[in-house]
Amino acid sequence: MDLHYKNSARIEESTLKETAKKLEEYRGYLSQIMGIKVYDAPECSINLPVDQDLMAVVKVIKKSKVTKALKYIIVIGIGGSNLGTKAVYDALFGAFDPIEPMRFPKMIFLETCDPQYLERFSDFLKNQIKNPEEILINLISKSGTTTETVANFEIIAAVFNEKFGDEALHDRLVITTDENSKLWNLAKSKNITTLHLPHDVGGRYSVLSPVGLFPLAAAGIDIESLCEGAATMRKNCIENDLETNPALISAALLFLQAQAGKTINDNFFFAPQLESLGKWYRQLLGESIGKEQDADGKTVHDGITPTVSIGSTDLHSVGQLYLGGPLDKCTTFISVKIVPNPMHLPKEQFTDNLVEKLANTSAQNIMEAILEGTKMAYSKKELPFMEIVMPEISPFALGEYLQFKMIEMMYLGKLMNVETFNQPNVELYKIETRKILKQRGT
Amino acid sequence: MDLHYKNSARIEESTLKETAKKLEEYRGYLSQIMGIKVYDAPECSINLPVDQDLMAVVKVIKKSKVTKALKYIIVIGIGGSNLGTKAVYDALFGAFDPIEPMRFPKMIFLETCDPQYLERFSDFLKNQIKNPEEILINLISKSGTTTETVANFEIIAAVFNEKFGDEALHDRLVITTDENSKLWNLAKSKNITTLHLPHDVGGRYSVLSPVGLFPLAAAGIDIESLCEGAATMRKNCIENDLETNPALISAALLFLQAQAGKTINDNFFFAPQLESLGKWYRQLLGESIGKEQDADGKTVHDGITPTVSIGSTDLHSVGQLYLGGPLDKCTTFISVKIVPNPMHLPKEQFTDNLVEKLANTSAQNIMEAILEGTKMAYSKKELPFMEIVMPEISPFALGEYLQFKMIEMMYLGKLMNVETFNQPNVELYKIETRKILKQRGT
Repeated sequence: MDLHYKNSARIEESTLKETAKKLEEYRGYLSQIMGIKVYDAPECSINLPVDQDLMAVVKVIKKSKVTKALKYIIVIGIGGSNLGTKAVYDALFGAFDPIEPMRFPKMIFLETCDPQYLERFSDFLKNQIKNPEEILINLISKSGTTTETVANFEIIAAVFNEKFGDEALHDRLVITTDENSKLWNLAKSKNITTLHLPHDVGGRYSVLSPVGLFPLAAAGIDIESLCEGAATMRKNCIENDLETNPALISAALLFLQAQAGKTINDNFFFAPQLESLGKWYRQLLGESIGKEQDADGKTVHDGITPTVSIGSTDLHSVGQLYLGGPLDKCTTFISVKIVPNPMHLPKEQFTDNLVEKLANTSAQNIMEAILEGTKMAYSKKELPFMEIVMPEISPFALGEYLQFKMIEMMYLGKLMNVETFNQPNVELYKIETRKILKQRGT
Repeated sequence: MDLHYKNSARIEESTLKETAKKLEEYRGYLSQIMGIKVYDAPECSINLPVDQDLMAVVKVIKKSKVTKALKYIIVIGIGGSNLGTKAVYDALFGAFDPIEPMRFPKMIFLETCDPQYLERFSDFLKNQIKNPEEILINLISKSGTTTETVANFEIIAAVFNEKFGDEALHDRLVITTDENSKLWNLAKSKNITTLHLPHDVGGRYSVLSPVGLFPLAAAGIDIESLCEGAATMRKNCIENDLETNPALISAALLFLQAQAGKTINDNFFFAPQLESLGKWYRQLLGESIGKEQDADGKTVHDGITPTVSIGSTDLHSVGQLYLGGPLDKCTTFISVKIVPNPMHLPKEQFTDNLVEKLANTSAQNIMEAILEGTKMAYSKKELPFMEIVMPEISPFALGEYLQFKMIEMMYLGKLMNVETFNQPNVELYKIETRKILKQRGT
């Protein structure tokens, strides 16, 4: 993975260095954490990709639950419980599922509790599934009491139960939750297979824990390679100096841009299958940095609003806004270096060279030209950006990206002087919702 | 469709009235346009839903191209050429396609020119399609020279041609473009079925022209009902006074909020199948209002950045940012009043009432409680919002929403004093891209 920013981020190199210097102590702290074996601080999530014990457990359970009959992995979880899994799955398979109807196993995500989706999903279970082995349900809730997740599960479980019986349901279910949560204890009492994530690891930093690793492994994705990518990046982002440390550079740039009023970070992916990776980052940045109070308890209403754009699609949608509109954005372009077997346009064109210079060129060539053209346009308009080039879309490269961004966020939280790992304001709507559900009764 | 804003938008009623008064002259202009039969101004798009000639043409071509064998409608287009179609299709079918594998015809969208997607799409054509009648290709480009659209088509056409021959390709292709564009002339010369959209109607206002109506009709969607919804809303939004005119209210609120520094408009849909509707609006708002210069040629870098959020999913993602972060957002909640057959949770729960008050309640009830709880939380934090309640998710209701938003945008453009219907800055990246493609050669 490469990060380019010189001549485009519009930040003085000396300012960048000064900013990075402020992170030296914290980088030392992360470096210490890298050695330890217990998960007793939120930053310990950086040790997940080298945790061989967790990997072994995930593999054993995968072996016991996945057979060739498996067609659908139903991931029931929301927010940190599924966004990382969806990011990796969609990049490798999900984005292509509509045009690969015969490829299995597919993953289906139940997130919110939409009544129409649930109705049609019940029909799917009733009519399309012949054999319980075709299904694997992974119920994921760190707290064990997420309303939508439990409600979705109850509805689906009732349908599954009616069709295949209680024993089949118990067999086709894996529950991932905090050790000793109420859900954990319930699962144990019913003898259901469980996985847990380390208590101190927060939802949005949990993709490389069993939360993400188990469903991804079940889908046939090489989770060892995913973790190797993450481990490599962990080293770069913690041990390296500014010059070769993408997390340090990116955090400092985002911080300095936000200080300069660029409080929207547009993540502009020139690869549509990475949209869900963008949505994973949207939570990571939004929830980690968007805070009413800073770490000293002062009211600040600080934060950076993440947006996800897809190249070249969104040039035809919000390109005008980005190039001409408010100067409130700092852009991260993300592109992919190597695409195997890029399709070429035919020599003899149906449309008789309606568009110049297209004959015999490749789709990859066109995409590269559009990205270059876009960067030139941004430069001419003096819009700040950095560019991340992923070597390819593979489990290894995705692991690199995920780890890079999680460590970037730890640095950024320090620079912004906020509590990176909490989300106090979210409680507010939950409290109100519970009140309403209580008033309404059933 | 209902719009609620009193007590939540945090704008004085008198200020709102004054702002709306500024639009009286323009409202009169729109009212005049409503009567005419020619399309000689960009605002004439408001006449599309009552254009019986266009409707008739679309129906005739649908009849000639759609048989029971049809399985996939391939929409090749980008930006204004497909976002409206995708909005309606996804709301009714697309969001459920992964769990309704046997429902046809399905729509597939080729937008950007991603090499990996194209490769896998070619495999799909080669391996999954047995008969040319299973496919209908709708190539849509207003100008007729959109790089990505033409490139996608050339690649797909070559594969299709090789498998089924030239004649089959000609038969299974419908081209939608401006009358007398180069593409139009080419299509005519090859005797390919064509549809055109009125020249003065811009891409992002073209969903109710053949651009959207033809593929939607081919997919079996009731386009008459869609247009009836739009026609009803057109009347409300042009003839009614402020009190009962949602476009006028919404435009004035967005304008006043932007003046007050709320330059992000979050469209928070409490129905995941409406995400693409949000993305359609993202172009409409982004491109119509995001302008470097105002209508008098003054450099202003004005605009409102649209974001799309999904309830309740994104409460678990960016809820913390929205409730605690920067005070730069004005929110539009969109919810759906009636959902047929809402699923109920079972009386006897698998998880033994882990979450209180869930037994026997419905998914709809839970979603409503979460939306109410969220609005309460926003109110407590004094965050401005309005709420749109769609009566249901149906072609009629979607037609209402689309027309409401397009007229809202015309009003908003006037209030912001920008040229609502152009997108001058987009040319910049296109010029640079063309230069690069030329330099590189093939």
